[in-house]
Amino acid sequence: MRQTLAILTFDTEGQGFHEITHDVNSWLRATDIRMGQVTLFCQHTSASLLVTENAAPAVKRDLLRWLRMAAPEGDGYEHDDEGADDMPAHIKAMLTGGGITLPLADGKMMLGTWQGVYLAEHRHGAHKRTVVAQAFGD
Amino acid sequence: MRQTLAILTFDTEGQGFHEITHDVNSWLRATDIRMGQVTLFCQHTSASLLVTENAAPAVKRDLLRWLRMAAPEGDGYEHDDEGADDMPAHIKAMLTGGGITLPLADGKMMLGTWQGVYLAEHRHGAHKRTVVAQAFGD
Amino acid sequence: MRQTLAILTFDTEGQGFHEITHDVNSWLRATDIRMGQVTLFCQHTSASLLVTENAAPAVKRDLLRWLRMAAPEGDGYEHDDEGADDMPAHIKAMLTGGGITLPLADGKMMLGTWQGVYLAEHRHGAHKRTVVAQAFGD
Repeated sequence: MRQTLAILTFDTEGQGFHEITHDVNSWLRATDIRMGQVTLFCQHTSASLLVTENAAPAVKRDLLRWLRMAAPEGDGYEHDDEGADDMPAHIKAMLTGGGITLPLADGKMMLGTWQGVYLAEHRHGAHKRTVVAQAFGD
Repeated sequence: MRQTLAILTFDTEGQGFHEITHDVNSWLRATDIRMGQVTLFCQHTSASLLVTENAAPAVKRDLLRWLRMAAPEGDGYEHDDEGADDMPAHIKAMLTGGGITLPLADGKMMLGTWQGVYLAEHRHGAHKRTVVAQAFGD
Repeated sequence: MRQTLAILTFDTEGQGFHEITHDVNSWLRATDIRMGQVTLFCQHTSASLLVTENAAPAVKRDLLRWLRMAAPEGDGYEHDDEGADDMPAHIKAMLTGGGITLPLADGKMMLGTWQGVYLAEHRHGAHKRTVVAQAFGD
């Protein structure tokens, strides 16, 4: 059994879900690990990783709206040095989670038919985000 | 170190928490991996996996009620082609998460005394759900 | 590739986020696994594990306030045998999650600059909590 690791970098364009399924599968192809698993870990506390619906774009818009409603800006947070969108971003990252571990089949993530892997940017501005990708297997 | 993988299939009976602890431990017994870990991944975006209280059934009812309150049906979602319970199901799946990694001891998941592993069905109707199970170890 | 496992025990002092980054990295140093990954699993349903901001203490206070607002005590729960803080604790544990898998570099968790690993205690009283720590690698 082998292991391999990389830091994947993504440029986000403000609040939204940025699909990274293809990027992760491309990296996996280069590692030549066919059977095993991949772990993805987001190194930020105002961005996160999640697996969700990859077909209807309206699903992502509804998820974003729900998150904005659940953790609204200007809701009397004590921590607001970095702007009104900062504390809501930490809350959203806590709720959606920063790590994913996925089994592989034939060198690709074993996602369901309607699933994609997304980097969720919770800040308004564009950011450079790093995701650690690690594969174990043969 | 060895690895092994299976697709476990479960029939849910509509919205609720379906315990799969015994099914996963039975599969682990068949793999004969005693020390190591298991990763479970739910291949759906309107069902999810979670570890919660396995003793008092009222806990599961309260969790379900909380999720219904947090993501109510008919809340003005843009995505509603598949029915009023679809978008709330995606939100609940996002909040509870679709993947779990658990260490093993003596071939069984190292759950706490009051913990069970549950497949959470977030749609009203009965569904066939697939969970990828993968074990690594010796 | 080797694997090693330990049960880490923590004494919490009631509701709050207890940083365990240093404890986990100390244990990792003792295992002498330099490249690989660590899985942490909280064996409780009213405490959980999360990765969040480790610099500004106000962030943790805001996260706690948000969780208390999202799952308030005395909200008509069916399950209340163990006190008014019990069912909110199960909800908060469901939302924040009990397991974390993190890649290692040079024997340490590959956290981002502003990230720490926290054991979140969701009950009012002090508790002894156990976290299973498992490392795989070389």
